[in-house]
Amino acid sequence: MARRPRQFESAEKVMGRALELASRGLGHVEPNPPVGAVIVDDDLAPIGEGYHQQFGGPHAEVHALADAGDRAAGATMFVTLEPCAHHGKTPPCADAVIKAGLKRVVVAMQDPAPHVDGSGIERMRQAGIDVEVGLLEAEARRLTAPFVKRISTGRPWIIAKWAMTLDGRIASHTSHSQWISNPTSRQKVHELRGRCDAVMVGVGTALADDPLLTARPAGPRTATRIVVDSQARLPLDSQLVQSAHNVPLLIAVLESASGEACGALSGAGAEVVRLPGDQDNHVSLPALLDELGQREMTNVLVEGGAGLLGSLHDERLIDECQIFIAPKLVGGAAAPSPLGGRGLDQIPAGSSFDHVEVEMLDGDLFVRGWVRKD
Amino acid sequence: MARRPRQFESAEKVMGRALELASRGLGHVEPNPPVGAVIVDDDLAPIGEGYHQQFGGPHAEVHALADAGDRAAGATMFVTLEPCAHHGKTPPCADAVIKAGLKRVVVAMQDPAPHVDGSGIERMRQAGIDVEVGLLEAEARRLTAPFVKRISTGRPWIIAKWAMTLDGRIASHTSHSQWISNPTSRQKVHELRGRCDAVMVGVGTALADDPLLTARPAGPRTATRIVVDSQARLPLDSQLVQSAHNVPLLIAVLESASGEACGALSGAGAEVVRLPGDQDNHVSLPALLDELGQREMTNVLVEGGAGLLGSLHDERLIDECQIFIAPKLVGGAAAPSPLGGRGLDQIPAGSSFDHVEVEMLDGDLFVRGWVRKD
Repeated sequence: MARRPRQFESAEKVMGRALELASRGLGHVEPNPPVGAVIVDDDLAPIGEGYHQQFGGPHAEVHALADAGDRAAGATMFVTLEPCAHHGKTPPCADAVIKAGLKRVVVAMQDPAPHVDGSGIERMRQAGIDVEVGLLEAEARRLTAPFVKRISTGRPWIIAKWAMTLDGRIASHTSHSQWISNPTSRQKVHELRGRCDAVMVGVGTALADDPLLTARPAGPRTATRIVVDSQARLPLDSQLVQSAHNVPLLIAVLESASGEACGALSGAGAEVVRLPGDQDNHVSLPALLDELGQREMTNVLVEGGAGLLGSLHDERLIDECQIFIAPKLVGGAAAPSPLGGRGLDQIPAGSSFDHVEVEMLDGDLFVRGWVRKD
Repeated sequence: MARRPRQFESAEKVMGRALELASRGLGHVEPNPPVGAVIVDDDLAPIGEGYHQQFGGPHAEVHALADAGDRAAGATMFVTLEPCAHHGKTPPCADAVIKAGLKRVVVAMQDPAPHVDGSGIERMRQAGIDVEVGLLEAEARRLTAPFVKRISTGRPWIIAKWAMTLDGRIASHTSHSQWISNPTSRQKVHELRGRCDAVMVGVGTALADDPLLTARPAGPRTATRIVVDSQARLPLDSQLVQSAHNVPLLIAVLESASGEACGALSGAGAEVVRLPGDQDNHVSLPALLDELGQREMTNVLVEGGAGLLGSLHDERLIDECQIFIAPKLVGGAAAPSPLGGRGLDQIPAGSSFDHVEVEMLDGDLFVRGWVRKD
């Protein structure tokens, strides 16, 4: 943990520290949002700080107040998300703030969750606390986007991940794909798996690659492996099914899928979920995402193949892309590219992304960005 | 032009300066190689410098000697390529070096051209000059690679250029492709065209896009536009043919192509070259490159489409790739990727490239590298 400064230069720096603290909870706190809090005196010298570390554990405000102790009275708290005003797994944070005698609270963003949604701010103001809202709000919204999406749409944040060659292929014309990206890139994928609620593939990829889809080494959470498998074709001797008693495996099938096949998969430890079909008689992806949202999944990583990713793209269901580009050429008119499906009729006039970041990973190019919805 | 330093720190720095000077001739001196020269005294203080500026004009050594004047006597010359020993368009540089009374010459690399190939070094040594060879040789070889390739294989250096989306597509499923890359990237392509001897496309791209393929604004040389058009299908009302009286247009057809069509193209100002076919009854690409080498073309830029680039890749004829990746998604199983053809059966285990460089161009990613031949 970076050493806390003796004194902050500005209010933005205090909130920046709170956001940095909040980000440490990513992968640990879901389905809660990540939250960080810093308490300072009138000279912006830190008195206490904390963040929401684990789902079910104390909220950021409680950690920061405990860190500050008696010195919290008369001080100012910077917190990345509106303190809650309801009894959930822990008592209301707004009450703890009031009780500690803080005179001022600076909130980066209001909590859009229906059971909060301004009520924490209102309760603190009624207790005479000076509450400001909106400092570094854009940064706070960026950090909590998956939470806000789930709260507001009932669906998880969809991260599309692929590794491709510099000529845009995810496999050769013979379906050979191991490996396109280098070990450093693959390690990054395992870290990502270890903080997501689910890792999803289409049955074609499951059949072609026989993947395990676990995070190795394990991360803060164990992602449910999801296979979109309209006709329940996943073999019982696949690595996915063979490990289903140890790591959750969810198989999304059509309502019309074979009862016998589904029964065998259930018997082997997988959870089979029957869903309505779309116009192409594949599992409806919006229905699947609704189902995952109801399970309070926040982050879902989709690792391919081209059919599933292309359908998600066609239905504008991808929120974020994480793309690994290896300095390799493979070529071949029949070699697959990352996004199959129908595709757009025209090349978009502007960028398809916001918040694009580019990084070199030991020779691979790593590009991530949020997919624009407008 | 950057100001010359008062004194160099090391011999490598002197040769580095000579290489930097040499590179200024790129696009101007072909089919000659780019060459730079710096003359220094015993303390590595510069006395004179120069580079080969224009085909037919004085060589680098002559410029540097003229710059140094009488002070060249007893001094050392750093030159990026072995001085010539033959009467070509200009008198032998080795003789000029001897006449000027230089005591030492440091050469980055021997000139592999059959009419030089060590004879310049030999002539200077016989005159009592201390000649060293090999300082920054790798850098010099990199700079002269297209020249060396033409000299040693009789074929030009093939630069494959494409612009693709972040999902690896060069067009949508409807063949819409204008524009994938941004204006900054497209400007870079025009600069590249302006220093190449030829810009080549397949007839499919010529039919789909009706391009002009000129450099706008014009560069140091006017690239011949080349269309690989086995059956001589290029329309007389295309922009390429319509401009053929002003900018050279070469159409590579099969020996079996329609005489009438070829005659009409010739009549419109194009040069029609009949070439043997390959096993797929397309124009033989090795035969075409041999033809271009005989015309002393050094750099040929291939701008697509997927069929031509894929065939070049399949035959391992690409020397360098210049790839523009736009932060856009288009998707579509039927949308083309840059390299068609058969493709490799397996993803290469290691990098397909040497000398990879990555640059951001106003939001586009620009990646260039040399294709490994091993």
